[in-house]
Amino acid sequence: MSNKIQVTVLGATGAVGQRFVRRLANHPLFQIAHLTASDRSAGKHYQDACEWRLDGEPFAGLGACILETSDPGAAFGPVVFSALDTDIARELEPAYARAGALVFSNAAAFRMEPDVPLLVPEVNPEHLGLLEGQRKTRGWSGGILTNPNCTTTVLVMALAPLHAAFGVEAVLMTSMQAASGAGYPGVSSLDLMGNVIPFIKGEEGKVEVETAKLLGQFEGSRVVEAPVAVSALCHRVPVLEGHTEAVSVRLKGDPSPEQVREVLAAWKPEPQRLGLPSAPALPIRLHEAENRPQVRRDVELDGGMSVHIGRIRRCPVLGIKFSLLGHNTERGAAGGSVLNAELAKVYGCL
Amino acid sequence: MSNKIQVTVLGATGAVGQRFVRRLANHPLFQIAHLTASDRSAGKHYQDACEWRLDGEPFAGLGACILETSDPGAAFGPVVFSALDTDIARELEPAYARAGALVFSNAAAFRMEPDVPLLVPEVNPEHLGLLEGQRKTRGWSGGILTNPNCTTTVLVMALAPLHAAFGVEAVLMTSMQAASGAGYPGVSSLDLMGNVIPFIKGEEGKVEVETAKLLGQFEGSRVVEAPVAVSALCHRVPVLEGHTEAVSVRLKGDPSPEQVREVLAAWKPEPQRLGLPSAPALPIRLHEAENRPQVRRDVELDGGMSVHIGRIRRCPVLGIKFSLLGHNTERGAAGGSVLNAELAKVYGCL
Amino acid sequence: MSNKIQVTVLGATGAVGQRFVRRLANHPLFQIAHLTASDRSAGKHYQDACEWRLDGEPFAGLGACILETSDPGAAFGPVVFSALDTDIARELEPAYARAGALVFSNAAAFRMEPDVPLLVPEVNPEHLGLLEGQRKTRGWSGGILTNPNCTTTVLVMALAPLHAAFGVEAVLMTSMQAASGAGYPGVSSLDLMGNVIPFIKGEEGKVEVETAKLLGQFEGSRVVEAPVAVSALCHRVPVLEGHTEAVSVRLKGDPSPEQVREVLAAWKPEPQRLGLPSAPALPIRLHEAENRPQVRRDVELDGGMSVHIGRIRRCPVLGIKFSLLGHNTERGAAGGSVLNAELAKVYGCL
Amino acid sequence: MSNKIQVTVLGATGAVGQRFVRRLANHPLFQIAHLTASDRSAGKHYQDACEWRLDGEPFAGLGACILETSDPGAAFGPVVFSALDTDIARELEPAYARAGALVFSNAAAFRMEPDVPLLVPEVNPEHLGLLEGQRKTRGWSGGILTNPNCTTTVLVMALAPLHAAFGVEAVLMTSMQAASGAGYPGVSSLDLMGNVIPFIKGEEGKVEVETAKLLGQFEGSRVVEAPVAVSALCHRVPVLEGHTEAVSVRLKGDPSPEQVREVLAAWKPEPQRLGLPSAPALPIRLHEAENRPQVRRDVELDGGMSVHIGRIRRCPVLGIKFSLLGHNTERGAAGGSVLNAELAKVYGCL
Repeated sequence: MSNKIQVTVLGATGAVGQRFVRRLANHPLFQIAHLTASDRSAGKHYQDACEWRLDGEPFAGLGACILETSDPGAAFGPVVFSALDTDIARELEPAYARAGALVFSNAAAFRMEPDVPLLVPEVNPEHLGLLEGQRKTRGWSGGILTNPNCTTTVLVMALAPLHAAFGVEAVLMTSMQAASGAGYPGVSSLDLMGNVIPFIKGEEGKVEVETAKLLGQFEGSRVVEAPVAVSALCHRVPVLEGHTEAVSVRLKGDPSPEQVREVLAAWKPEPQRLGLPSAPALPIRLHEAENRPQVRRDVELDGGMSVHIGRIRRCPVLGIKFSLLGHNTERGAAGGSVLNAELAKVYGCL
Repeated sequence: MSNKIQVTVLGATGAVGQRFVRRLANHPLFQIAHLTASDRSAGKHYQDACEWRLDGEPFAGLGACILETSDPGAAFGPVVFSALDTDIARELEPAYARAGALVFSNAAAFRMEPDVPLLVPEVNPEHLGLLEGQRKTRGWSGGILTNPNCTTTVLVMALAPLHAAFGVEAVLMTSMQAASGAGYPGVSSLDLMGNVIPFIKGEEGKVEVETAKLLGQFEGSRVVEAPVAVSALCHRVPVLEGHTEAVSVRLKGDPSPEQVREVLAAWKPEPQRLGLPSAPALPIRLHEAENRPQVRRDVELDGGMSVHIGRIRRCPVLGIKFSLLGHNTERGAAGGSVLNAELAKVYGCL
Repeated sequence: MSNKIQVTVLGATGAVGQRFVRRLANHPLFQIAHLTASDRSAGKHYQDACEWRLDGEPFAGLGACILETSDPGAAFGPVVFSALDTDIARELEPAYARAGALVFSNAAAFRMEPDVPLLVPEVNPEHLGLLEGQRKTRGWSGGILTNPNCTTTVLVMALAPLHAAFGVEAVLMTSMQAASGAGYPGVSSLDLMGNVIPFIKGEEGKVEVETAKLLGQFEGSRVVEAPVAVSALCHRVPVLEGHTEAVSVRLKGDPSPEQVREVLAAWKPEPQRLGLPSAPALPIRLHEAENRPQVRRDVELDGGMSVHIGRIRRCPVLGIKFSLLGHNTERGAAGGSVLNAELAKVYGCL
Repeated sequence: MSNKIQVTVLGATGAVGQRFVRRLANHPLFQIAHLTASDRSAGKHYQDACEWRLDGEPFAGLGACILETSDPGAAFGPVVFSALDTDIARELEPAYARAGALVFSNAAAFRMEPDVPLLVPEVNPEHLGLLEGQRKTRGWSGGILTNPNCTTTVLVMALAPLHAAFGVEAVLMTSMQAASGAGYPGVSSLDLMGNVIPFIKGEEGKVEVETAKLLGQFEGSRVVEAPVAVSALCHRVPVLEGHTEAVSVRLKGDPSPEQVREVLAAWKPEPQRLGLPSAPALPIRLHEAENRPQVRRDVELDGGMSVHIGRIRRCPVLGIKFSLLGHNTERGAAGGSVLNAELAKVYGCL
């Protein structure tokens, strides 16, 4: 009937899985063919297996779908979106890739593999080129493409235009992250209400290594990591959705806040040039009010696909500091992964 | 009856004023003689002029006290604690000092005056020496001594032992500050619930300049500011009491996290050596758990007079990073000011 | 240009005022001609006089409008929406009515006047008939029409179909109300975070008297209050928007929960029959899940104009109990008032 | 060494278990001899098996204790406090009782058994008399005594003096309950922040049946339930500790609010007459301020063992209404159970 590409969502009942389903239910290029869940839920109707925790139409109208097990031996759309936990992803995603699926994964399992693209279409679309080598080396007809950790994604959206214009030498980022980043049920209300938790397991390391890869140079068959010093200090705060990041950067040539603002305002990267369906018109929203961006008020704009920057000012230690905000489960998870698939489609990888 | 020193609390109905009253109500050295309030409240019983918003005995047992106007021409205890707003403090505190009062002020009005001690007893007790010149120059029989901004106070408690042991070259501090820092009623619940506000008026500048003064060298009649680069990125978060600070420092000689921990653990500054009544046994509480300190769980320990440090680790950008926590309205306001008065008493300034 | 009716919004900078502006900016029947504010803000551009605190386009695209003073002697649209504080409303609204304006007021000042309609279009559209007598008695060419307190509005939306079908003898309602009900800045975060405040000044009395008037019989020139015992127990809880109400009712004939559900599901009152622009398709949304409605998840549906009912069950004391939820600043304030104006337009009162 | 009674805490790692340990660590009558936990934790040091989530000394100084399995065949103190989940309690508590232990249980498993005392010492100390029959019928040397659900406990503390003075005919109670009532991790922050959940599984039924038993008449070998109509409407709100209850009652003789207040103020029940160690001096704290009691400000007073009542006023439907507040995990759980054991000790049951 339609010539949309059939897709499978692995782990459709979880926090990110539901967002995949909502994004893909009426997508111009993709059509949901299979939803998978844990063995406990497989065989049930989607609407009976979990509570729908998003706004809008419950289960995106797919509540009557029968959930399947995550089984690479069964039928799947040629495009697979993975919202699996990292442990399970480590096992299942290669099996799907071997079976021919192009897996767009939100899991951390393969992000730092040298032959796996770690991709944010605005930042490093050319890294998609790693796929060819990946298929050759591994003997896969499919492949694995990953999007970074949510906190990294938001950060590199701000760093990419600065790196292109000036060169980023060092970045120090303190995050104030939403509860939803831990999935559902995730963080207990007894731990989070009225509190700040100065620790998120594994998060700081992910931001530090992923950033260097994302800003790295694609050189034919490999990515040479960017020589940037990255320090992340990650916190959980009583916020539902959206990560706030306080960022200081040392840029080559020590540009002024005005020069930085101009570069950010003028940025028009690949997805915006291509008009990818999930790309926001402006990848970066600049705020002039001295007390913005604010996560509760700004983060849902553009379907959560743009990032927000405000308070660009001199940093007495590193040169430039600013306030950064992005949507962790849209731009930083489901939306980012879908945008990767849109890029791959346009680039002829599907 | 007692030979305690009579004291006056200026602005006793506000958030910090109530904490002054609670701290001084059963103090071993001081006895409350006068409580002042705005003209609107003067003449009323304390308990009729405001709601008591602290734990423990309402109005610290002084609910029947008659509030007076803040009038340097009227009677006052020779020691005056000021919880006045900065604008009013700018006018009234010098008048009290001229009239002979030693004013321990929590206001920002005179902190950066060259002849006014900006004092944290653990950090720079010798700066009390500025008082002599202040009295001479200004022809006052009394004087003004200030405690820093709450965020600064917490920060310098951590920096002081590191500065003494290694030398602090640069510090980058991102704060996540409690609602109480804005006084009462302060921040609207509509602005703060589920949100992060990346801006607090004037706060970043205060931290940056006050820190350099506090870590400065007292040279007879003046303080030479420390040559340390300080960058503050201040946020308001949905927390009631206590400021969390994510700190990165560049220290001379690039010590290891273990060396830093040893220095912090061994620190025994002046108030602890003197056994000042409000001094906590340990000025710094070190936490070993990877997810501590947490503001809601840790900040009330030691009556809010110690600061908490955890997660001391390498910073890829500045060398060392750690989590810091302190009580903004106790150590960072009322308690800090009372401790200053205790130091002044022991040093013979009263 | 258009034949829309010109309207004035009194008090456009406040929490309810902004919602009036957002609702009226693209309204099919009305066009904003004047926005007023306090003397302090008059003369300023709308966008310079306050912060826009709603989602969507800032200032609804009217940020460049010049705010005027609230002056019945100056020009005004023939229809006036009042978001004034009750004290100011008491003085200004009659002056506007005398000057010829039909004032749709959200203020409490005149709600209980015998000749002033207290109106919820789904509940008592016939009470609009009071307007004729009001004009005659008071000699006004305009008039005042009011919508009830937000908590009352939500309650009577649930009671009206039950009163029509069975007769309500007694109702006991415990509210858990959002911060926004107190306006901006309203409730301090220091009072509300992690707390329940079991008191809202004047609220319980308003619910008790307004409900009896709203369910009352219009008899030509007056409304005979319904003989229903109403008890309200009102609380403020840490919620941003939306009032949750736990309701128990004693109905004539002691119907079963199933009978009650059928009546609520079948209800199709006047605004829905007329298709008024702001009327939701279903005035009552019935929830089947045992843990719904939930304020954060459900209240924004239908632009906040429907109310939500769930958990209809037997009450061992009064017969029937259920969970009720509605939007306090939309259905219970701005949206309710605009719907009143739409009804008045269709009924030929404008 | 001491002649304190040796006690065992079953389920010491959980939310209520930790409170048992903190209460019993320095108790004048009891001494902790054994702490048990799940098989997964048994054999570990207490401090390695869980995070300590309470204020005060971590693990109440017992962090080095070795946790044991819950095994009635192993050694146990003759007094056993059970913080077990209901399912496990159903199996293990009778086994302990059979083995000779007097089990003071916080679980719901046996509360409504006709021969098991459901006990609040201020309310129905004479129900302890059921124990004799229980032992006889079941052939146990030990026995099971229970404390009610937390919400019920708080409610009956208010109802008991009114029932004694006037007779309670009907009570309608709407609760706003803290997150801690669901244990740890309990309610997800994603479900609770900024929300009200109008449903707590099983809670309303428990309150309704337990209240009738607690207010019932002890007649030698059985308790005749009180003929009182009870309706509970239970909600979860974003509060850490403490349940707020909005209560309406129909009392015989329709007393005035002043008469009700006098009765509550004059109440001096058994634990206060006996001076039991955990009994608060005043079982009910009456508040005069129109906006109190407030859970965050009042609930920790008296170690959470008193309940708070304010806003006693006429209810147009049932006669009297008031605001009630109590500590769900102290008075409503661990503290209540310990007080039961103190009563049993003084009554000679140990």
